[in-house]
Amino acid sequence: MKKVCFIGACGHFGSAVSVIGSHPERFTVSAISAGSEQVDISRLEAALVQNGIAVPKRYDDYRQMLTEEKPDIAVVDGYFCDHAEMSAYALAMGIHVYCEKPVATTLEDLEILKTVYAKAARKGVHFAYMLTTRYDPWFYTAYQAVQQGVIGEIRMLNGQKSYKAGTRAPLFHQRKTYGGTIPWVGIHAIDWVLWFSGKKVERVTAVQSSQANGGNGTMEATAICMFQMEDEVVAHVNIDYLRPQSAPTHGDDRIRIAGTKGVIEVRGSEGKVYLIADKGLQELELLTPPKIFEDFVDGIDGKVQPLITAEQSFYATEVCLKAQLAADTGRIIVF
Amino acid sequence: MKKVCFIGACGHFGSAVSVIGSHPERFTVSAISAGSEQVDISRLEAALVQNGIAVPKRYDDYRQMLTEEKPDIAVVDGYFCDHAEMSAYALAMGIHVYCEKPVATTLEDLEILKTVYAKAARKGVHFAYMLTTRYDPWFYTAYQAVQQGVIGEIRMLNGQKSYKAGTRAPLFHQRKTYGGTIPWVGIHAIDWVLWFSGKKVERVTAVQSSQANGGNGTMEATAICMFQMEDEVVAHVNIDYLRPQSAPTHGDDRIRIAGTKGVIEVRGSEGKVYLIADKGLQELELLTPPKIFEDFVDGIDGKVQPLITAEQSFYATEVCLKAQLAADTGRIIVF
Repeated sequence: MKKVCFIGACGHFGSAVSVIGSHPERFTVSAISAGSEQVDISRLEAALVQNGIAVPKRYDDYRQMLTEEKPDIAVVDGYFCDHAEMSAYALAMGIHVYCEKPVATTLEDLEILKTVYAKAARKGVHFAYMLTTRYDPWFYTAYQAVQQGVIGEIRMLNGQKSYKAGTRAPLFHQRKTYGGTIPWVGIHAIDWVLWFSGKKVERVTAVQSSQANGGNGTMEATAICMFQMEDEVVAHVNIDYLRPQSAPTHGDDRIRIAGTKGVIEVRGSEGKVYLIADKGLQELELLTPPKIFEDFVDGIDGKVQPLITAEQSFYATEVCLKAQLAADTGRIIVF
Repeated sequence: MKKVCFIGACGHFGSAVSVIGSHPERFTVSAISAGSEQVDISRLEAALVQNGIAVPKRYDDYRQMLTEEKPDIAVVDGYFCDHAEMSAYALAMGIHVYCEKPVATTLEDLEILKTVYAKAARKGVHFAYMLTTRYDPWFYTAYQAVQQGVIGEIRMLNGQKSYKAGTRAPLFHQRKTYGGTIPWVGIHAIDWVLWFSGKKVERVTAVQSSQANGGNGTMEATAICMFQMEDEVVAHVNIDYLRPQSAPTHGDDRIRIAGTKGVIEVRGSEGKVYLIADKGLQELELLTPPKIFEDFVDGIDGKVQPLITAEQSFYATEVCLKAQLAADTGRIIVF
């Protein structure tokens, strides 16, 4: 039986709640904490109830919660600016951390987190970020196909994230708490670029704008990041909050990967994967991925090699933060 | 009756031949010249015959041809590195020029051409480049819709050109004659970015690679260009020669434009235009565009305001060459 505590309820905490609710024999939720000021913890309480989980004890101070409850796993989902500090605090106590992305909103925080993790990892403590889209059947299916070599050697990757803006919580309205659109939204597409290619970034440039952001403070509404990667692989991701409210889905996630033997394309809003290789254009049958939180815990239990590693969580965050630095400063950032 | 001479047969000369063949009352082809060394002029002769046009006199020297024939219009389609010189030579003689894109392969040549054109324009001489895709029903339809304001104010543009590489003529194998993949292929997508937005570029960065180019010399197989434009509009284009031979069409041309009121998307390989605006996702009914060469000549005759202007032809070429400079040098090029 694994004891789980939740810190915050700003992002994808639901990806843990649903798995916990389906496996009462495996998990217990012992306590929750808002973690950051102004976090509406009632969203988490409602999700727990909906998934048949009794609302547990609530702590004002997450540190006190971790000290007293001594959980096996902390689900970190506070203000985006607090992810690193919360994660580091838990990791240092030997608690496994399932953390909302990005894992940090500054390079300084990221370095501290990596150092703490390195020590904890030597004691078998696990860490992964909630890069939920890797577990979407379309991305998962495309990844498996690329691993099998259907497009040969990857030469270019083109990613897209497009969201409806709506009216966002105050958290999103300032860089200090939000962290920025490239790390918050773009990280999915940047993760796909890194995950599919397995390549390191050599240089990044980026552009962004907060215009037309639906009155959401300084939140960037558009951004493009461009990458020079190892072995002359090139990549870009375009990100926006301009998807109309009338669109059939909230998001329009895409990746297109061109290789030496074919081109594969994921169109998330259609839930489709298209491959053009030696047999011409075909739609791939979707595989059934594991559930992200279950995969994380199965990794702790040594049952599987999870899809997401701690190192990937750190590196994708680093790439996002350097891309944002490139956009903020108008400079080329060399890795 | 307009007298036309052809110089070279390397690119889209066919866009003039088909119109001329359909209008024998309006055009006569008086002579042709290979223009550049190693140009296979038999392709042009075959196209003329196929379109019911008698094979005309052939000159070794295009300058002599222009001097002796004194045509109304020169179709310039020599080696890409020779476009500017050929065009300038004709323009200086008061001959209208319909020129393959890019109109120059160096910024120096472009400046000379612009200077010659400026003088010729004062005498009513016309110039336009063969940006054939503007006249594809899907791009034309999307352009008209955007002009009508269906997506509001443009905030981001994402363009794509993808071609089958095949085995290319020696012209393509070295930068000196070919000019590069960004100016040759990318210019279409860069033109759409400029044409749809009507914005000027402030800064460009770009990446490219000649790896996996199918044995075509130094021809770049992949490239991405990223633009910071006026009013914080952002844009990118991705370009590749990695489209598999088995693909249903030669090219996979796309543009996606996100605005304050909607998103419009052209998928050229499907011949479709998709709009998401206040009515949700819809496919636009295709309009019937004019024919590019006919539009050019109608512009000379004062019948229409053609879709392509000389200034746009020069500017898109300049943007391509500066994007390529950015890729070649790894620098940010400021306009």
